[in-house]
Amino acid sequence: MNAPPRQVAFAVTTGPLPASLKRYAPGTLHADMRVPYREIALHPSAGEPPFSVYDTSGPYSDAGAAIDIEKGLARLREPWILARGDVERYEGRRVRAEDNGHAGKHLAAEFPATSAPLRATAGAAVTQLAYARAGIVTPEMEFVAIRENIERANLGRERLEEMARDGESFGAEIPVWCTPEFVRDEIARGRAIIPANINHPETEPMIIGRNFLVKINANIGNSAVASSVAEEVEKMVWAIRWGADTVMDLSTGRNIHNTREWILRNAPVPIGTVPIYQALEKVGGIAEELTWDVFRDTLIEQCEQGVDYFTIHAGVRLRYVPLTANRVTGIVSRGGSIMAKWCLAHHKESFLYEAFPEICDILRAYDVSFSLGDGLRPGSTADANDAAQFGELETLGELTKIAWERDCQVMIEGPGHVPMHKIKVNMEKQLAACGEAPFYTLGPLTTDIAPGYDHITSGIGAAMIGWFGTAMLCYVTPKEHLGLPDRDDVKVGVVTYKVAAHAADLAKGHPGAAARDDALSRARFEFRWEDQFNLALDPETARDFHDRTLPKEAHKVAHFCSMCGPKFCSMQITQELRAAAGAMSAEAGMAEMAEKFREGGSQIYLEAEERSRG
Amino acid sequence: MNAPPRQVAFAVTTGPLPASLKRYAPGTLHADMRVPYREIALHPSAGEPPFSVYDTSGPYSDAGAAIDIEKGLARLREPWILARGDVERYEGRRVRAEDNGHAGKHLAAEFPATSAPLRATAGAAVTQLAYARAGIVTPEMEFVAIRENIERANLGRERLEEMARDGESFGAEIPVWCTPEFVRDEIARGRAIIPANINHPETEPMIIGRNFLVKINANIGNSAVASSVAEEVEKMVWAIRWGADTVMDLSTGRNIHNTREWILRNAPVPIGTVPIYQALEKVGGIAEELTWDVFRDTLIEQCEQGVDYFTIHAGVRLRYVPLTANRVTGIVSRGGSIMAKWCLAHHKESFLYEAFPEICDILRAYDVSFSLGDGLRPGSTADANDAAQFGELETLGELTKIAWERDCQVMIEGPGHVPMHKIKVNMEKQLAACGEAPFYTLGPLTTDIAPGYDHITSGIGAAMIGWFGTAMLCYVTPKEHLGLPDRDDVKVGVVTYKVAAHAADLAKGHPGAAARDDALSRARFEFRWEDQFNLALDPETARDFHDRTLPKEAHKVAHFCSMCGPKFCSMQITQELRAAAGAMSAEAGMAEMAEKFREGGSQIYLEAEERSRG
Repeated sequence: MNAPPRQVAFAVTTGPLPASLKRYAPGTLHADMRVPYREIALHPSAGEPPFSVYDTSGPYSDAGAAIDIEKGLARLREPWILARGDVERYEGRRVRAEDNGHAGKHLAAEFPATSAPLRATAGAAVTQLAYARAGIVTPEMEFVAIRENIERANLGRERLEEMARDGESFGAEIPVWCTPEFVRDEIARGRAIIPANINHPETEPMIIGRNFLVKINANIGNSAVASSVAEEVEKMVWAIRWGADTVMDLSTGRNIHNTREWILRNAPVPIGTVPIYQALEKVGGIAEELTWDVFRDTLIEQCEQGVDYFTIHAGVRLRYVPLTANRVTGIVSRGGSIMAKWCLAHHKESFLYEAFPEICDILRAYDVSFSLGDGLRPGSTADANDAAQFGELETLGELTKIAWERDCQVMIEGPGHVPMHKIKVNMEKQLAACGEAPFYTLGPLTTDIAPGYDHITSGIGAAMIGWFGTAMLCYVTPKEHLGLPDRDDVKVGVVTYKVAAHAADLAKGHPGAAARDDALSRARFEFRWEDQFNLALDPETARDFHDRTLPKEAHKVAHFCSMCGPKFCSMQITQELRAAAGAMSAEAGMAEMAEKFREGGSQIYLEAEERSRG
Repeated sequence: MNAPPRQVAFAVTTGPLPASLKRYAPGTLHADMRVPYREIALHPSAGEPPFSVYDTSGPYSDAGAAIDIEKGLARLREPWILARGDVERYEGRRVRAEDNGHAGKHLAAEFPATSAPLRATAGAAVTQLAYARAGIVTPEMEFVAIRENIERANLGRERLEEMARDGESFGAEIPVWCTPEFVRDEIARGRAIIPANINHPETEPMIIGRNFLVKINANIGNSAVASSVAEEVEKMVWAIRWGADTVMDLSTGRNIHNTREWILRNAPVPIGTVPIYQALEKVGGIAEELTWDVFRDTLIEQCEQGVDYFTIHAGVRLRYVPLTANRVTGIVSRGGSIMAKWCLAHHKESFLYEAFPEICDILRAYDVSFSLGDGLRPGSTADANDAAQFGELETLGELTKIAWERDCQVMIEGPGHVPMHKIKVNMEKQLAACGEAPFYTLGPLTTDIAPGYDHITSGIGAAMIGWFGTAMLCYVTPKEHLGLPDRDDVKVGVVTYKVAAHAADLAKGHPGAAARDDALSRARFEFRWEDQFNLALDPETARDFHDRTLPKEAHKVAHFCSMCGPKFCSMQITQELRAAAGAMSAEAGMAEMAEKFREGGSQIYLEAEERSRG
């Protein structure tokens, strides 16, 4: 490093969300763990306990946590990893100028604290899959089990069973209560993964699988034309604040290595990358010059840094490339187009495909999960579900089996652009071809006519495919197809995808999912405005929208809003109506009135009662 | 009118959309009609003709039109209405102080030009349904037939048939080409309506039915606490600029009559209202004091003004009210809660239900369509699909038959808040209960946990129910549940619902729907940035998002955007790849290369070819 490193000025967003307290649940099998959740206080008039929600935001939202970006987060999992006795610390690969795209005088500062990386001792498989197959419940598995139950914790078994019965899960097998043993079984079967590189001990473990809560990923990353290190770290912190379960760093251009280091050391969520992007930088952007050696070097580099999952486009086989010839939009995956170009230039199968078993061996030594990339995904609704796309999916299924044989965790990436009537078959084919490995889809976008609103065109498809069984939804921001998302775009993308994921959980009958809807609906009906804001996915926007027309504090207890005004509020009228029915509690009001009429022999109410039974 | 009318300063948005030309198609059966559409010019390099789209925006987007809000729009349909020889002009009801909520010194200005209203001559049915049943193809019917075909006009029959085969329409019977006779048949069967009050001759006719393009409605309207006449007129003009097919004026508070008059005289789209809102104002906001006389007077008032459809909550029967007692959110329809309160207070069926045949007779004399309100729709996902909701739906089915017997056009309002897995049964029950009368739903919202994002929670449900068969989608704005939407909210709501409606058309296999997606996708693949913006539902936002990172004109021809930068643009790589394959045209590039290999006996490409056939 000859060039003097530039200063990086960090200002990340910290502090609790409104009315929220960060709390931690202890483990049972592993007593030293602290599983984070967020407790939302409700107004005393609610007569309800605080509402606990799954919390992805890490220590940043903990009022008591000391945040120092230059030091990075606490290495929570390190004792667990070392206790397993199957890893060794070694002198890792040295950082080279090419790792940062020969940034020279534009080189971003290195992360100050470095530590030697860990890897598996010779021959050991240090993956959660290997442990699960060996019957071991790791701390990571118990952690995610506790975490998955957060929103079920205050509900009785009867209510949870009722919620499960109410849904349609298309063959998913979501348990009423998530146990560490269930987590282990699902991982052992390949139906779920915990992305958890042994060199990223800062993560708070999370699980991706069809029988768990639907997760979302947010993409960040600088490109050659925009963004800086500090911006990307803040985007990561900002994305998890609003609910991103994992973050992919899709940086291209210069400073890839250093940017990623800052992100990893400060990320409490799994970080994914597409290593071919950096490999391409190392060969000056010329796809044909990519080699297995350059790619292998890049994998090691990123394994040592702590990346938790890699998108690898090993399914782009030479024979599929001509199938894209008559497409409206050809190949739209960046990795897919790079590999297709390589395959055609050399007229042979890619090194990703040929060297796949070797890749498995590398990833196994660090427990980096595969995210098998859909390099031939459709880039327009016209190209959806074509021979190229489904051909590649079959190959991803074959690769899944190879990875599983080598104890690697795997998820499968999916489209893309798919009109609504062609979404379900994507899920069905993926489950069949890939042995129920978790599906991880980008949207899909259900129409191509709304650039600027592709968070919405894709949010529709994401909610649907999440319902059908997709385990993780990769967000799309309003800037998709148009430019690099900024901080506001990241937030809108994340919240939109939290909507899609939650709508999917609700439709699947995920036990506990309806509890937050019900809590917010009760707050709405009872005019607890503060509770409505605080229970919302985005309390700040909800409050802001309300206050634009009715800013006064007094309106926070008003029995109306500016939409209808005081005389036309249906909820207020209903409450009056219930009160008029002479009941003490709003809940029981009309039922009691009906009872009264029944006692008096009123035929009308008898009919109604019969109808409600029928 | 004692108080001096206040001045109203109008500034409505006029002028064409980017690269767009307003054009008019002539009729065949009725040569004097001019059916509007918008022609979007494409870049010469596209080698494609201009792209024509359905256009709801009226003369406001016609560069050649003279707009004078104080005079109102041209009365296009008046000659057609008069030519039928079944109406008479008469001295209408006089405006009273109570019509404007006794606004007094706050009275908004009256619309300057007034004309005496029309009504049917004694006994005549002047509805499109009556004409259709009599075998008459009205100018309105031909107009909508031409309009429905706008986006099919440049496609061959073979391509249209292919598009139709590609979809899943759940039993809809969408013709490959829409003829005036088909329109007449659908109206005669009650499966579609053309809302077209004889006193609103300014409308450009449009049709609502399952076998036509999915339509959207935007709600506007002042409430007692916010907004003014000028704002509401601009909101209407603004809403139709972005694609609202109809607009509902949901004003409450003062100045209801005058606000509505300004809107109607300047509206080229059908206007809907909920007359009970104004009736309630007339009795000082006390639901129990409502009477059939007050309501009847309000109906006449609004029929004479030219309202095209009325939401009437005649399905709120006394016996259903107790079924809402145990709901989480009770009754959330404003009209529904008013009527429920009335029913319980008087302990009898509402005058809307009792006097329904009389209401039909009034509406028939002006051709006001029924929008039978779902006063008991669920207000939270917890309350979806309950006995109260479905009980009311059965009653709406009974009322539909009564209205049809009296030659009235009818559509049926639907929910509301419904999780995804409970949406489809809503459509199925509606079709069965209401004899395939068009369904008109509010969303539905698929979760309750995202106030501030309810355009999205509901856009998901709207796209799905539109696919299943809903004929018109009532928009929800980001301010839903929080406050009165402003101009920006109206736009976001409209564009979100255009996305939902178009995604539905695409999934149904609506012939022609895919053409716009394909045109935009081609523009994207060929880096025609200007065409991408101009073909978008919202060209301004698409351009703005692009330009925030790459503002220079030179970037409008760049083969990349700021999202990926120049080296990582997959579309650019695919184009290089196709070029490298030695083909003259990008379209045929790789196919030719595959051909070359096949000729040379390359086994790999033979396999691919076989796969693509399989």
